[in-house]
Amino acid sequence: MLETIVQAEVCDDECPIKKTADVIEGRWTTLVIRELLPGKKRFSEIQRALDGISPKVLTARLRLLERRGLLTRTVFPTVPPKTEYELTPLGRQLEAVLNAMAEFGEQLPTEYTH
Amino acid sequence: MLETIVQAEVCDDECPIKKTADVIEGRWTTLVIRELLPGKKRFSEIQRALDGISPKVLTARLRLLERRGLLTRTVFPTVPPKTEYELTPLGRQLEAVLNAMAEFGEQLPTEYTH
Repeated sequence: MLETIVQAEVCDDECPIKKTADVIEGRWTTLVIRELLPGKKRFSEIQRALDGISPKVLTARLRLLERRGLLTRTVFPTVPPKTEYELTPLGRQLEAVLNAMAEFGEQLPTEYTH
Repeated sequence: MLETIVQAEVCDDECPIKKTADVIEGRWTTLVIRELLPGKKRFSEIQRALDGISPKVLTARLRLLERRGLLTRTVFPTVPPKTEYELTPLGRQLEAVLNAMAEFGEQLPTEYTH
């Protein structure tokens, strides 16, 4: 894989790192993926886990990830309606990226980016 | 590593994925790291490789990465002064994250995030 990085002379739109950076751009996007790795969840469960995210931002992130084919949204016709979010096979493939991020982040002090 | 992800119930400031997400936040930050993985470079070399980045944004990104201990800046007292940027051992450890990103991104079509 290092070859891929080193060979590309100019970082154009073909650069796979740039493409992934665009996919996981924004802290919340990555963390929504993280919440869904163990399995499907409801909106309220994701919101509770991501302490501090506003419903508006969470809705926007979920729609973006849905448009990008990383998760599916299933609405059950109950009263009130129940909505479940689940990673697609493509979305689950981000697990390797998140694992590498977790491994790197574990060595950083808590206050590192504050 | 999956255990790390699943075990944390709430995504707080201790979450290593969140910490790494904050570190590599922003497309350019990741791409600057990518440019420096093969070895040290001068400002103009990084700028040329990152087609489209403005000198102002690149300077800001480089200073941020320097403050975070991911790279060093060496100024040589030549005329005109020559400045070289080089990843620190911590910065080089992001290689695993970028490799995972490259592997994921390779399966995405070029126009995926446009």
